[in-house]
Amino acid sequence: MTKTIAVIGCGLIGRAWTIVFARAGCDVRLWDPSPEVRDEVPARLSETCDVSGDDPAALSRVQVFGTLEEALTGAEWVQENGPEQIDVKRALYARMDAMAPPGVILASSSSALVASSFAEGLAGRGRILVAHPVNPPHVIPVVELCPSPDTRPDVMDKAEALMRAVSQVPVRLTREVDGFVLNRLQAVLLAEALSMIEQGIVTPQGLDDTIAHGLGRRWTLMGPMATINLNAPGGVADYLSRYGPTMARLADDAARGEAFTARVAEIVAEAMLDPDDVPALSQNRDRRLAALATHLTHIQDKDD
Amino acid sequence: MTKTIAVIGCGLIGRAWTIVFARAGCDVRLWDPSPEVRDEVPARLSETCDVSGDDPAALSRVQVFGTLEEALTGAEWVQENGPEQIDVKRALYARMDAMAPPGVILASSSSALVASSFAEGLAGRGRILVAHPVNPPHVIPVVELCPSPDTRPDVMDKAEALMRAVSQVPVRLTREVDGFVLNRLQAVLLAEALSMIEQGIVTPQGLDDTIAHGLGRRWTLMGPMATINLNAPGGVADYLSRYGPTMARLADDAARGEAFTARVAEIVAEAMLDPDDVPALSQNRDRRLAALATHLTHIQDKDD
Repeated sequence: MTKTIAVIGCGLIGRAWTIVFARAGCDVRLWDPSPEVRDEVPARLSETCDVSGDDPAALSRVQVFGTLEEALTGAEWVQENGPEQIDVKRALYARMDAMAPPGVILASSSSALVASSFAEGLAGRGRILVAHPVNPPHVIPVVELCPSPDTRPDVMDKAEALMRAVSQVPVRLTREVDGFVLNRLQAVLLAEALSMIEQGIVTPQGLDDTIAHGLGRRWTLMGPMATINLNAPGGVADYLSRYGPTMARLADDAARGEAFTARVAEIVAEAMLDPDDVPALSQNRDRRLAALATHLTHIQDKDD
Repeated sequence: MTKTIAVIGCGLIGRAWTIVFARAGCDVRLWDPSPEVRDEVPARLSETCDVSGDDPAALSRVQVFGTLEEALTGAEWVQENGPEQIDVKRALYARMDAMAPPGVILASSSSALVASSFAEGLAGRGRILVAHPVNPPHVIPVVELCPSPDTRPDVMDKAEALMRAVSQVPVRLTREVDGFVLNRLQAVLLAEALSMIEQGIVTPQGLDDTIAHGLGRRWTLMGPMATINLNAPGGVADYLSRYGPTMARLADDAARGEAFTARVAEIVAEAMLDPDDVPALSQNRDRRLAALATHLTHIQDKDD
């Protein structure tokens, strides 16, 4: 595959995307509004490869440019990773839509803003979508593809095909929804988790152990639906018939937004390691995510 | 360690517990009310070891007895895995409480019933608790330890110590709560997942991919709290200050018990493999869970 990709915004997520595309054989053209960030990109990309075990030879296909227009030249796909500020995004998409020929797809990594919020009114709104990764995408493969009401179906088809071609796992949403799928699931779990911690039912460590050494393992191997499909002899319909009423009762009794209190933030922060450790812990996380990805691919290959 | 453990009820969960205790060096005394189940136990235990890669030599420490009283003789810990029927549990705990000397701890694998519901009124209610595993416990280490209002703190201490000694991961709850921690978390996630599937926002496969190839991987490596601790430069307090309001909005907007509809059960069932495949898929799951447990232990050892 010799696609040309523009990566706009070269922070953590932009650099991780760069590795995703470069290791798949794409030519990657980078731009960031900050000259300091642009200067640091090559060294930072090498560091990232060190942690994840990616072959730094792929970085030979990466070039950093001094202007947005140069970076977009010849690109078939633009992966934008700007700040989550609506005014910044609107201005950036207006510029990119004016610069890029009509066949070029403009995809945002936004986790907080839906595509219509920055694409509405643009001539090329039909080729704009959100392609929301989990940070960092070079070690976590899922990408949520979320259209605006204006995004064309053929653009969604091409987005899905490209993501598969670069070995990511695209999840296609049929319509625009606040939080997409992933953060909606995370939000409800966090609300109930924080509520139980604030009530003193379980410690933050106990909460993490419950998922990390328990349910999270099944969810990682097969997802929540396939998990319940194997939790009753007759499959998922049997599960929902047997346990649906209990689960519904627990869900009705669960916490919601009110669980995100300042008090519970203090409790959890006290239980966590020093925030100064966040960079080192993040590197360790990425190393472990890369090893887990390799392990899961290996298991999958054995099954096929 | 040469503890003596009684495993009461020899279905899937009882047999998995048997392997947990036997491979840790315990003598395990089994009983099941069904003579057919008792007869099948040795062959079934061997099969389970085949799937998980456990050394079948540990099974030399396992004995099946014809009566409850014989199985309890000399046991320091009783792990009960009877049906989730309140009358059956009450009758069983009355018998066991009468038979077992006061120092013996009686622990139920119940996922649906809290300990007070079957221990209340018994002389030995102070030594009765729930030790809820995730099925199957020989390949998923978490165990929720949930007291009734009558369970003595020293019994909880001993329960936690025993579970650590047999290489499980105990999560101690401070008080009785419907669904314990794990199923409360599962319930809210399932409610929102089913709602998005029924609305047609995402397919069952897309939902599973979102967790299995996305958030589930972080949760498996570190749990939900440690995950958000690394999602903002200043750690979890910074995360909750930046994203708490968004997460609260998503949680407020989320589905609850009403999401467990017959219609969505049909949709998910149609998307899943034939329910006839459940036994084969479960074996495959357990093989993969065992491999994942080995992988995660290996990564952890490298970190220490």
